[in-house]
Amino acid sequence: MTPTPLSGIIPPLCTPFRDDFGIDTDSLRRAIDFQLEAGVHGLFILGSSSEVAFLPDAQRRTVIETTVSHVDGRVPVLAGCIDMTTLRVAEHVRVAEEAGADAVVVTAPYYTRTHVAEVERHYRLLRERTGLPILAYDIPVAVHSHLDRELVLRLAEEEVIAGLKDSSGDEAGFRYVLQGRRERGLGSFAVFTGSELLVDWALELGADGAVPGLANVDPEGYVAIHRHVRSGDLAAARAEQERLLKLFTIVDVAPPHRMGRGSAALGAFKAAMKMRGVIADAVLAPPQLPLSEDELARIGEKLAEAGIGEGELA
Amino acid sequence: MTPTPLSGIIPPLCTPFRDDFGIDTDSLRRAIDFQLEAGVHGLFILGSSSEVAFLPDAQRRTVIETTVSHVDGRVPVLAGCIDMTTLRVAEHVRVAEEAGADAVVVTAPYYTRTHVAEVERHYRLLRERTGLPILAYDIPVAVHSHLDRELVLRLAEEEVIAGLKDSSGDEAGFRYVLQGRRERGLGSFAVFTGSELLVDWALELGADGAVPGLANVDPEGYVAIHRHVRSGDLAAARAEQERLLKLFTIVDVAPPHRMGRGSAALGAFKAAMKMRGVIADAVLAPPQLPLSEDELARIGEKLAEAGIGEGELA
Amino acid sequence: MTPTPLSGIIPPLCTPFRDDFGIDTDSLRRAIDFQLEAGVHGLFILGSSSEVAFLPDAQRRTVIETTVSHVDGRVPVLAGCIDMTTLRVAEHVRVAEEAGADAVVVTAPYYTRTHVAEVERHYRLLRERTGLPILAYDIPVAVHSHLDRELVLRLAEEEVIAGLKDSSGDEAGFRYVLQGRRERGLGSFAVFTGSELLVDWALELGADGAVPGLANVDPEGYVAIHRHVRSGDLAAARAEQERLLKLFTIVDVAPPHRMGRGSAALGAFKAAMKMRGVIADAVLAPPQLPLSEDELARIGEKLAEAGIGEGELA
Amino acid sequence: MTPTPLSGIIPPLCTPFRDDFGIDTDSLRRAIDFQLEAGVHGLFILGSSSEVAFLPDAQRRTVIETTVSHVDGRVPVLAGCIDMTTLRVAEHVRVAEEAGADAVVVTAPYYTRTHVAEVERHYRLLRERTGLPILAYDIPVAVHSHLDRELVLRLAEEEVIAGLKDSSGDEAGFRYVLQGRRERGLGSFAVFTGSELLVDWALELGADGAVPGLANVDPEGYVAIHRHVRSGDLAAARAEQERLLKLFTIVDVAPPHRMGRGSAALGAFKAAMKMRGVIADAVLAPPQLPLSEDELARIGEKLAEAGIGEGELA
Repeated sequence: MTPTPLSGIIPPLCTPFRDDFGIDTDSLRRAIDFQLEAGVHGLFILGSSSEVAFLPDAQRRTVIETTVSHVDGRVPVLAGCIDMTTLRVAEHVRVAEEAGADAVVVTAPYYTRTHVAEVERHYRLLRERTGLPILAYDIPVAVHSHLDRELVLRLAEEEVIAGLKDSSGDEAGFRYVLQGRRERGLGSFAVFTGSELLVDWALELGADGAVPGLANVDPEGYVAIHRHVRSGDLAAARAEQERLLKLFTIVDVAPPHRMGRGSAALGAFKAAMKMRGVIADAVLAPPQLPLSEDELARIGEKLAEAGIGEGELA
Repeated sequence: MTPTPLSGIIPPLCTPFRDDFGIDTDSLRRAIDFQLEAGVHGLFILGSSSEVAFLPDAQRRTVIETTVSHVDGRVPVLAGCIDMTTLRVAEHVRVAEEAGADAVVVTAPYYTRTHVAEVERHYRLLRERTGLPILAYDIPVAVHSHLDRELVLRLAEEEVIAGLKDSSGDEAGFRYVLQGRRERGLGSFAVFTGSELLVDWALELGADGAVPGLANVDPEGYVAIHRHVRSGDLAAARAEQERLLKLFTIVDVAPPHRMGRGSAALGAFKAAMKMRGVIADAVLAPPQLPLSEDELARIGEKLAEAGIGEGELA
Repeated sequence: MTPTPLSGIIPPLCTPFRDDFGIDTDSLRRAIDFQLEAGVHGLFILGSSSEVAFLPDAQRRTVIETTVSHVDGRVPVLAGCIDMTTLRVAEHVRVAEEAGADAVVVTAPYYTRTHVAEVERHYRLLRERTGLPILAYDIPVAVHSHLDRELVLRLAEEEVIAGLKDSSGDEAGFRYVLQGRRERGLGSFAVFTGSELLVDWALELGADGAVPGLANVDPEGYVAIHRHVRSGDLAAARAEQERLLKLFTIVDVAPPHRMGRGSAALGAFKAAMKMRGVIADAVLAPPQLPLSEDELARIGEKLAEAGIGEGELA
Repeated sequence: MTPTPLSGIIPPLCTPFRDDFGIDTDSLRRAIDFQLEAGVHGLFILGSSSEVAFLPDAQRRTVIETTVSHVDGRVPVLAGCIDMTTLRVAEHVRVAEEAGADAVVVTAPYYTRTHVAEVERHYRLLRERTGLPILAYDIPVAVHSHLDRELVLRLAEEEVIAGLKDSSGDEAGFRYVLQGRRERGLGSFAVFTGSELLVDWALELGADGAVPGLANVDPEGYVAIHRHVRSGDLAAARAEQERLLKLFTIVDVAPPHRMGRGSAALGAFKAAMKMRGVIADAVLAPPQLPLSEDELARIGEKLAEAGIGEGELA
């Protein structure tokens, strides 16, 4: 396995739909262009923010083929291979490999009541089945278990996994992983935060990059944070991150007694992308619920407050 | 939608594997024969006890085709269509329909952070897509949400769902569903407990049947409970259930610090099936862990205590 | 330790307050009379339904002294000694002992992150400090751990605990305790369900009694269930329990987005007690919130539907 | 209410016991001296790390009186008033006030199933009852609810609370509080992290200080972090924090299948304090379990690795 040069801002790309929930490939290509023009360093498709849990296999394949083809090697393309257990994930990995993804991103098993020793076996078995780099995806809010930090470091040491996308919300654990990586000389093990809100901090602390869902709406902001931290201007990085903290409150415009937190967040991202003229339609895959007119209006206001103008489809 | 005549003991059939994790169809047919000879009233394939979360789509299809063909109409075959959200579930429903299943069994969305209004939309959209009866499958330990009892009754009233398999562990909630069904005159709405341990009680209270994983090991016991309750011999039903309470402790032979509760339970079921001569191999799908020799020996002892002799493959 | 003759319906008595949150001892005595006239077999004071978590020590002492004095030996008085850990609980036990309680009721430790071995030590240390029977109180919704059933049986066998009040919601676990009690010959170990909704079932299965909060409102109903089960009239017990299922929905009249489930339930119990003329005021201890006029009206309707007339303070 | 000048490193002081679980006031005074000599800026007594959940009221009073008297105004003394609900907390607040504490620290209600509106009422009622500054204590691992960040800011704005000790583990939420404080001009609202592991980051971001349990063992380290951040030497702050990350692993020396995480952490802190010659005995209040000889030896090794020599009682 070649050391992975993954780093920087790698947005988890939202998946635009047509009315019939086929992939809106025109909008998908426009979203990719929008990201690349903003200077992102990679793209993560088929992650949680991509509504991967809502996409049938054929649509997943369309997303990956369209993206790989349109990106055409300009940045690395990471593909989420999100399914419940090893053999099912292995099939997604095979598809990603065939379609030309540069790396795959894999969670712990879910639906089943799992155990750290089974999580370990899961990654080891997948390692045997692909030549692609595997990033472990720590996302307890979805899979209801948290990756053990010692396991992560051991799998990194043995080159079973090539990186980590940490959406655990456990920042102290994240720091232990960064410390362990440094002390064990695992320089090629790529560590990413999945947070939208602590990217400046994660980068200052040595993380290689970030995978923030909000970058679908404001990639320029995250690219700026990355640039500022790399150039040592921590105050500028912080100011930009603080601006994005406020923008991120679009995910709470729809209240919890009305819809799931998934719909509220992804609906807000897509609505904002549409307002910016990036995608044609903000529809979410079923059974997610749509935002109301009032909620959309408040999202528009928050975009304006964050200095983001509305746009039109090119 | 025709009223569903589903009732009685409907075991959630374990899925036997070959060494390469292809379906061991010989063992599967033997397991079906074993169940039908014991007098069960239906079969539930591709449920949690079937390791559905571990089966790629091709294996799922093999299981359903093999079962439908081998059962050949002698009892109803219910097929689990277990996936994260509506469009993915819809594909499994289509396969089940094509393969000749008599009903499909569907959980609430998972992986995503859902909401009762989204769960409702999920079932309504699936109802539009199939002519098969849909049973709602309430299994919080896997999907991390609990079906709202008022929603269940409303969906029953509007014939969106034809039944409920309740593995929630919320027996009071189950009772409210039974009460609501009676008061609203929903006689054709089929209500099943997913518990192994309270089948006598559920049947006495008016449930139509049970879907106990332990019936893979001891279908005779559950069929006897059903017969005793139907004939009014509650004491005999209770005695049989109490015997099965003790047998069920095979699921805890492997300790929680060594493996997941899924592996421990399904490994025990399959080991016992092998000891009885029903299936050729007790292997679990990856990444689940195997039981140790000592643990297998204790399972053998518990079978003997429960009066179950060992057998040989026919 | 003398074997405990505890059995039957033992309501967890609500604690009536004056406007200044002193104990309304007149109402407390009236509530006790109301219960004894209905034929209950004991009283459990200072439990969760008594707002014990809200009562300063002086008020707790007033409750226990008033109750012991007013009951005057007619039925056993069980006193909750609800606090976080051993030494704090021990002080409440000493007060209960001095005030003449017949038994104490003790939860697992909480606030601290505990362990089964520490729960065991907790009960053993308390056993050394009092001559009163100790009932273990299993209430995960409050203490966030569930008593291990093997531990319960071991402590019963060694006469560390004299009984169990099971409010765990784990009915299968409850059944294992009843089975273990029978098989190990622990006849004097008293097992109570804390459920409002499964009392008929628990008694049929061999439980000694029930501690249902709703008995504050309708003790006659629970006493009738007990009588029917003892006389073998299971159908009558079931009918009565089904009536109480519907009455119990008063606890959900106030919606979850407006107040805590504690306020909603205890506010409903007290409102109904006031409507029946049992207590003078339905006020809850701070910081709980009051029910609205609309919510109170709906509770009144539900009482009427359950055949319970309104009353006046004697 | 006078604006509170609370800031800096304010360790949550462990409570030393005699063999009979009376307070070892000699060791307590020695621990205070040890902290003050290390340059800490305040002391937080009767918090979670002080085993407050294990202390009867008389011992709590001894701790506060001993501390206030021995500190004698050299630094502010904050007293935890940890109990389940308003009236019980109010009694602890009164004692703290009488004994001369400078501020009180109060959690959300627990044991009861609470609601954000009830949490709000809780703090407002306590505000009416004391002239002391109240710090809100956000500790979901103990109280099982997380303080709503908007509520915290609103209560700060209205001067209901004078500060926040955030042990929530939700660093993004903490950042929102800091941002809100700045934007609303709440400069006198004191914000502390309760983390041991992110103190450098919290201080850089504008937090007033930290309340790290590990400062019982190594106050010099935390004081150094504070000094380095204040002087702008972030690299030195980070290096010191990284050293303490490794030292903090003493809390996991005892494995989770053997004892609760409370015993493991507090046992480790006290063992290390004893090794440093600060307290006479490392005993924990019941029902917590003691560390083994092997575990103590590993703690000694970790102290040595962190550059901390063993000491003797003065």
